[in-house]
Amino acid sequence: MAVNLSAPEKLLPVAGVRLGVAEAAIKKPGRNDLLVVAFDEGSRVAGVFTQNAFAAAPVQLCRERLKATSVIRAWLVNAGNANAATGDGGLDDARATSAAVASALGCAPEQVLPFSTGVIGQRLPRERMTAAIPSAVAALDSAAWNVAAATIMTTDTVAKGTSRRVTTAQGEVTVTGIAKGVGMIEPHMATMLGFIATDARLTPAAVDAALRSAVDDSFNCVTVDSDTSTNDSCVLCATARVGTRDVDTGDADYAIVAAAIREVCVELAQAIVRDGEGATRFITIEVGDAASVAEARQVGYAIANSPLVKTAMFAGDANWGRIVMAIGKAGVAGLDPARVGILLDDVVLLERGQPHPDYHEQRGAAVVARPEFTIRVSLGRGAAHARLWTCDFSYEYVKINAEYRT
Amino acid sequence: MAVNLSAPEKLLPVAGVRLGVAEAAIKKPGRNDLLVVAFDEGSRVAGVFTQNAFAAAPVQLCRERLKATSVIRAWLVNAGNANAATGDGGLDDARATSAAVASALGCAPEQVLPFSTGVIGQRLPRERMTAAIPSAVAALDSAAWNVAAATIMTTDTVAKGTSRRVTTAQGEVTVTGIAKGVGMIEPHMATMLGFIATDARLTPAAVDAALRSAVDDSFNCVTVDSDTSTNDSCVLCATARVGTRDVDTGDADYAIVAAAIREVCVELAQAIVRDGEGATRFITIEVGDAASVAEARQVGYAIANSPLVKTAMFAGDANWGRIVMAIGKAGVAGLDPARVGILLDDVVLLERGQPHPDYHEQRGAAVVARPEFTIRVSLGRGAAHARLWTCDFSYEYVKINAEYRT
Repeated sequence: MAVNLSAPEKLLPVAGVRLGVAEAAIKKPGRNDLLVVAFDEGSRVAGVFTQNAFAAAPVQLCRERLKATSVIRAWLVNAGNANAATGDGGLDDARATSAAVASALGCAPEQVLPFSTGVIGQRLPRERMTAAIPSAVAALDSAAWNVAAATIMTTDTVAKGTSRRVTTAQGEVTVTGIAKGVGMIEPHMATMLGFIATDARLTPAAVDAALRSAVDDSFNCVTVDSDTSTNDSCVLCATARVGTRDVDTGDADYAIVAAAIREVCVELAQAIVRDGEGATRFITIEVGDAASVAEARQVGYAIANSPLVKTAMFAGDANWGRIVMAIGKAGVAGLDPARVGILLDDVVLLERGQPHPDYHEQRGAAVVARPEFTIRVSLGRGAAHARLWTCDFSYEYVKINAEYRT
Repeated sequence: MAVNLSAPEKLLPVAGVRLGVAEAAIKKPGRNDLLVVAFDEGSRVAGVFTQNAFAAAPVQLCRERLKATSVIRAWLVNAGNANAATGDGGLDDARATSAAVASALGCAPEQVLPFSTGVIGQRLPRERMTAAIPSAVAALDSAAWNVAAATIMTTDTVAKGTSRRVTTAQGEVTVTGIAKGVGMIEPHMATMLGFIATDARLTPAAVDAALRSAVDDSFNCVTVDSDTSTNDSCVLCATARVGTRDVDTGDADYAIVAAAIREVCVELAQAIVRDGEGATRFITIEVGDAASVAEARQVGYAIANSPLVKTAMFAGDANWGRIVMAIGKAGVAGLDPARVGILLDDVVLLERGQPHPDYHEQRGAAVVARPEFTIRVSLGRGAAHARLWTCDFSYEYVKINAEYRT
């Protein structure tokens, strides 16, 4: 069902990063569901995490560990179980499984970050995971990015990953990222799970800045269903294998590397929407002429999350009355309908609050029949702008989520 | 599909109120789709209207006319066309059709309030409506409440109405109300369309106070799909036919009549949810121990509008992890998960943030299999409380909204 999305070609290895997978039968047997990513010494890691108050145990542990140090040596990821709402026992499970990785790699337990995705409210199968970790570590390989992307999938239908190679003053830098997630997606500060690595030599502050800025323009601009996961995590590792001089945020090389990181994040975030549960349309929403970016995003999310807009798009019905409704309900104080304009791609629906005389339903329907199109809104209030990505709402969405656990 | 809802038995006439319907073929021919409600002299009317910035033309006209006077003589209601996002032409249509009612009744045009419901963005068939109005006026009858309730339906599957009779110091008072609406339902200040009348002799201030208070506890506590219509309107007419002394908000009789009005509004609001598009479950959400009512409602709406919670309820799956997620994403600052409790009816799922040891999936599934149940949340922060009503999210919801215009 994914919209114009296929599994990535060969993802580029990143110097200083090795990946290994194993089967721990976390939800059920028969697939790889455990991933270890190991980093060479000198690597620096930054992360952003869910704003959900019920942050999962691994998110709590990641926050605690990244507060103490950016010198991280490994990520441990499991699919099939979110380790969320699992109380103190869940924290113990996250500590024990990441300690098993530390022991296999010979680093401190605090240098391992755990990540989980899957069903909420069930304890991890701690023993099966610790038993599987040594074989994942034994399999560590710098060329295993594609198999890693497949290992972290849950209800994803397509593995998600992308690479960029850019030239800096200190040499060629590679950025590779993988992500998973198709539902419970309206990330605030991070998405379900995103893992990005680069061999650039960035200062800890630059790693953090590059990640936050990229996430803000990518994962924080998508919504599938308005629901924010308890496990959203996005982490960036810079292994410092290219060059000899640390790159900080003011440097020219920073701009080059940060742009590549941003491109990777945008492609991954869009992949999550393209593979959104039941998606048949990939929809860009551009809100312009707003008084502030916050206001533009508010209107964009009101449109993107309206079940009535999303079902109309599924039907290929340019029911722009529902777009009008969504703009109107967004809660923008003092919004003047007589200044609002709406376009579907380049077809004008509403101009200064009035239906456009040249508009006919067939013109709108022709746009909405496309698998990808843009809803453009002008608020007539200022110069601020925001862009979001979302998908439609289909029978399949209900089917997937009504049958998820059965 | 409606959950435990059938069309009302004989609704009680209200002294001073007569109703007449006609066929104006507004969307298509073959059904009554136009309603006139006429009031005797001395009646007082109050109204509450949508907070959507794109308020429909009839809503704009109602606001303007009620600002000038509470002495209203008629309501004109049409189904099949919302007269929203129709620009200046739409305002002209609303003025012309309500003027036709005024002319047939012999009152001033400003004493007629227009209401429209249906598709957004299309002009009203003004000529067919003005042609049909005289036959609706000729049919005026105090016993026509049931046929009126059927006339204002759009995608409603069941007509909605209810009556109460209470005894006051000045005599027996009747309250009868009708409503319509099954989608685009998360009213703010009023719902799609609600019409309530009483023969009590209330001061204009008392009419207004009784309506606002009742709506706040009824129509403002329901959500089907989180979408707020451009046409939400709820009006109350008090015809002053019972007694000789005006009843104001401090009087004992006010409390009696206001309670009956509230009961009518709650039953109508619940009927809208029971008939919610594609609904198979009627769900009450109670959020208690909150720091404020606003915070309790915020959490309640986050649960009620979560597509993941709603699809799990449709599946009869007590997937309480999704309830946890929804509470966590509600944005309550400083929420402590370790103090949160969740029950399904009387089955404890989560206690002080930990899964309850006695909980088994079968116990939750048994509750969620019921057509009506309550999700109870304790936030452990204070003494405030809120109660909302919502429905589940089914294949049928998508079908109804993807095929609405075709």
